[in-house]
Amino acid sequence: MQLTAREIADIVGGTLSGNPAEVVTGVAGIREAQEGDLTFVGSPKYLSAVQTTRASVIIVARSAAVDSTRTLLLVDDPTAAFSKVVERVIPPPIRFKPGIHETSQIALTAELGKHVSIQPFVVIEDGVIISDNTVIGAGSYIGHGSRIGADCLIYPRVTLRERTIVGNRVTLHSGVVLGADGFGYEVVDGKHRKIPQVGFVEIGDDVEVGANSTVDRGRFGKTRISNGTKIDNLVQVGHNCVIGEHNIICALTGIAGSVITGHHVTMAGQVGVAGHLTIGDKAIIMAQAGVTKDVPAGAIMLGAPAVPHTQFKRTNAAMNRLPGLATKLRELEQQIADLRAKLDSH
Amino acid sequence: MQLTAREIADIVGGTLSGNPAEVVTGVAGIREAQEGDLTFVGSPKYLSAVQTTRASVIIVARSAAVDSTRTLLLVDDPTAAFSKVVERVIPPPIRFKPGIHETSQIALTAELGKHVSIQPFVVIEDGVIISDNTVIGAGSYIGHGSRIGADCLIYPRVTLRERTIVGNRVTLHSGVVLGADGFGYEVVDGKHRKIPQVGFVEIGDDVEVGANSTVDRGRFGKTRISNGTKIDNLVQVGHNCVIGEHNIICALTGIAGSVITGHHVTMAGQVGVAGHLTIGDKAIIMAQAGVTKDVPAGAIMLGAPAVPHTQFKRTNAAMNRLPGLATKLRELEQQIADLRAKLDSH
Amino acid sequence: MQLTAREIADIVGGTLSGNPAEVVTGVAGIREAQEGDLTFVGSPKYLSAVQTTRASVIIVARSAAVDSTRTLLLVDDPTAAFSKVVERVIPPPIRFKPGIHETSQIALTAELGKHVSIQPFVVIEDGVIISDNTVIGAGSYIGHGSRIGADCLIYPRVTLRERTIVGNRVTLHSGVVLGADGFGYEVVDGKHRKIPQVGFVEIGDDVEVGANSTVDRGRFGKTRISNGTKIDNLVQVGHNCVIGEHNIICALTGIAGSVITGHHVTMAGQVGVAGHLTIGDKAIIMAQAGVTKDVPAGAIMLGAPAVPHTQFKRTNAAMNRLPGLATKLRELEQQIADLRAKLDSH
Repeated sequence: MQLTAREIADIVGGTLSGNPAEVVTGVAGIREAQEGDLTFVGSPKYLSAVQTTRASVIIVARSAAVDSTRTLLLVDDPTAAFSKVVERVIPPPIRFKPGIHETSQIALTAELGKHVSIQPFVVIEDGVIISDNTVIGAGSYIGHGSRIGADCLIYPRVTLRERTIVGNRVTLHSGVVLGADGFGYEVVDGKHRKIPQVGFVEIGDDVEVGANSTVDRGRFGKTRISNGTKIDNLVQVGHNCVIGEHNIICALTGIAGSVITGHHVTMAGQVGVAGHLTIGDKAIIMAQAGVTKDVPAGAIMLGAPAVPHTQFKRTNAAMNRLPGLATKLRELEQQIADLRAKLDSH
Repeated sequence: MQLTAREIADIVGGTLSGNPAEVVTGVAGIREAQEGDLTFVGSPKYLSAVQTTRASVIIVARSAAVDSTRTLLLVDDPTAAFSKVVERVIPPPIRFKPGIHETSQIALTAELGKHVSIQPFVVIEDGVIISDNTVIGAGSYIGHGSRIGADCLIYPRVTLRERTIVGNRVTLHSGVVLGADGFGYEVVDGKHRKIPQVGFVEIGDDVEVGANSTVDRGRFGKTRISNGTKIDNLVQVGHNCVIGEHNIICALTGIAGSVITGHHVTMAGQVGVAGHLTIGDKAIIMAQAGVTKDVPAGAIMLGAPAVPHTQFKRTNAAMNRLPGLATKLRELEQQIADLRAKLDSH
Repeated sequence: MQLTAREIADIVGGTLSGNPAEVVTGVAGIREAQEGDLTFVGSPKYLSAVQTTRASVIIVARSAAVDSTRTLLLVDDPTAAFSKVVERVIPPPIRFKPGIHETSQIALTAELGKHVSIQPFVVIEDGVIISDNTVIGAGSYIGHGSRIGADCLIYPRVTLRERTIVGNRVTLHSGVVLGADGFGYEVVDGKHRKIPQVGFVEIGDDVEVGANSTVDRGRFGKTRISNGTKIDNLVQVGHNCVIGEHNIICALTGIAGSVITGHHVTMAGQVGVAGHLTIGDKAIIMAQAGVTKDVPAGAIMLGAPAVPHTQFKRTNAAMNRLPGLATKLRELEQQIADLRAKLDSH
């Protein structure tokens, strides 16, 4: 990419102020922009960053009436204008052509839909069914009897263990492992004896699972990720969980076995949820919280062990007053001693 | 799977109450069961769930004398009866046939035992020794000079770096990386210079390592996971750790370098252990605890920094009384002022 | 490895005390050493371990004047002497020979430098450029248009998504995923609609990324890991982060999107950093801390939410005095009651 400020103005329209020959070689958000980047101010609250950003050209709202010596491009809708440049300069997303790569190993009993793309070094075991337009990335492994819906994008190096079910329009990022054994043992003669994990994993429609995340198969029955739920990288979902629809689960979160979540639940990064709990609809679990009890619908939970965020704030405020409390206590002690002396000398 | 309540009663015996034509298409635990599922009550404490479960048929103990309009199957031992149905309806576990897949790349100097199964796209480097009946899953990489015992199950896409030693009856789930370099640097002229990590990883017998977990090689000498220890998904074990026998280490736990644990230690999810510590036999580290000091045998640790759980509870209780404490302090202040006024007016 | 204490003394020089026929079969640090190991005391503070280590032969400083019946080897510089033995007995690191394995799939438009090593089952897509002496490990995937510098070591089973840029002398451990989509959605009609992630990942020179760690591509523009930064296993770096030079980021740390760090920042294990924050040069974030605000240069942060370590210590100390505070409060209450009674009876 190499464009001048003038050329960008020609693409998006708007009024240029500053140096029209300023050269742009990349695009970035206003905080992370480096010299040579084009950036934009999408919200008035970031306007002050116009003075501090390292970007070379900044798209701002005409209405903001910014006073700056920087090279600015004044437009009606900065976000739309920026997106227009991004679309122009960013290469199109990779499309994997339909077809079966000659190196892939596909069982004779597997059934592939129309326009399926099977990339190099893929293994597809007996009884697998893959629907139309789905892409299986290089080096992925699709275990016996698994079924994958239509229009899915399985990135390279994904593992689906046997009998995994995946819906339509699902994206699985590289390194995902679906259907590894649940972590269940019973102690027999001082040793941990494995409890067979003979269930499976079921992923609904429009689900996305981030890189290197893992969802364990059910002990018997299924572990389910429901429609529309999005899971970030390095997340662990334990056996027999039923994750509801349209959940957002951020990186490094760990959900123990048999947890049930409602719809539109949000878990921020590094959250932990103990086993066999129920999390209500639209609950929000803040980052690093450790959930040890059922969470009612709509609750906002914080801390470890997690408590409602109002309680957390109250306790935290009290904590901050703690050193002052000790000082006050010493003062009262002195006042009492003074009073006693006074009384005795009375 | 498709069975009626009547057919299930025929399989396991017992007395049917409710609708014998109720159709069952799956099996599940009582909380996560959906319509169409068969479930069971294994323990009297879950009997109340008989009224709330979404399962279509419930196996309960005859002795529980449950009063319900649900379709129930009354038996002497619900867990055994349920297991009998599960065995009947769940497909048998996948068995990988012995033999070497034609696509695998096996060094001439590697030695393979009897009935070994080498799946597609496996790479086995020079000097590797693999014992009888072991399965190496598709796309796995076994580095130079590694030795794997008998009856092991290495799932697809596992990496063993050079000179890793694995015992007998070990299960490694997909994405496991054994023997990556330990994380050790020394600062030289303001830069981090790598300390060579020339040791190895040694895994004992009957160990299981969960999906995408990592065990780093020793700096020199070994990182060891001892017999019978079970490690969950996404766990990190640092260089030169010696994890004792029959430990249970749950998901997303991170153990820094040179930690030594006794036997039967339990670490719940997302535990962190600082480097060079010793954890005594049978100690239990609760979820999300951050261990910063040696832990004596049998201790139950909680919190970050981790303290014995009795202390944690005491502190937590005091925390909850904190707002009350402040109120009380204000009261005392007032009382002292009153006393002083009274004394002055005396 | 099999050497007697006498043979070791012949290798490193020094004076032998104890049993010269003692057989050594391994090397290890003094705490993790087992019977049969050679170990050493590099620092006087570990001298007491000479009595408790299970090692068979111990190299100690002549100047330490240790009095022990153990088999000791007295030398001027124990660390140097031990390293000499280690170099002698540890096999040399694995070198992957230059050349392209016949099973690898390399796009015609890819450009490979001199002495590049492409291992089995590697996929290299269109437009990739790989510079001299770089090794691409077995089963790795290098996406369209990616560029990798010289002298890099990419271990087996690494994924680089399209347009990733990697500098020189970079090490990527097995399971690393660079350039998976950032985790960004906007809610439309109650569903999470994906925000296109069309940027890329840029890795500087001399960077190391640990096993199964993930660095997401920028939304537009880049996610950058700067020169000399070292990342441990199972770390997540979110989209559009700009990680500065010579950072140390330990295992299981999660950094949300658009975080900017200065140079020489250290994050210990399991740290969490919220999105859009700035961390100043040389700041240290202690293990398990949860950073929720910008961190000034040089700060040492602790706790969740993270506070400067001096404040954390003060609060922690106050916490420990909390039960005492309550007791003291009850005493004062009693004293006031006594005073009042005395005053009333006056």
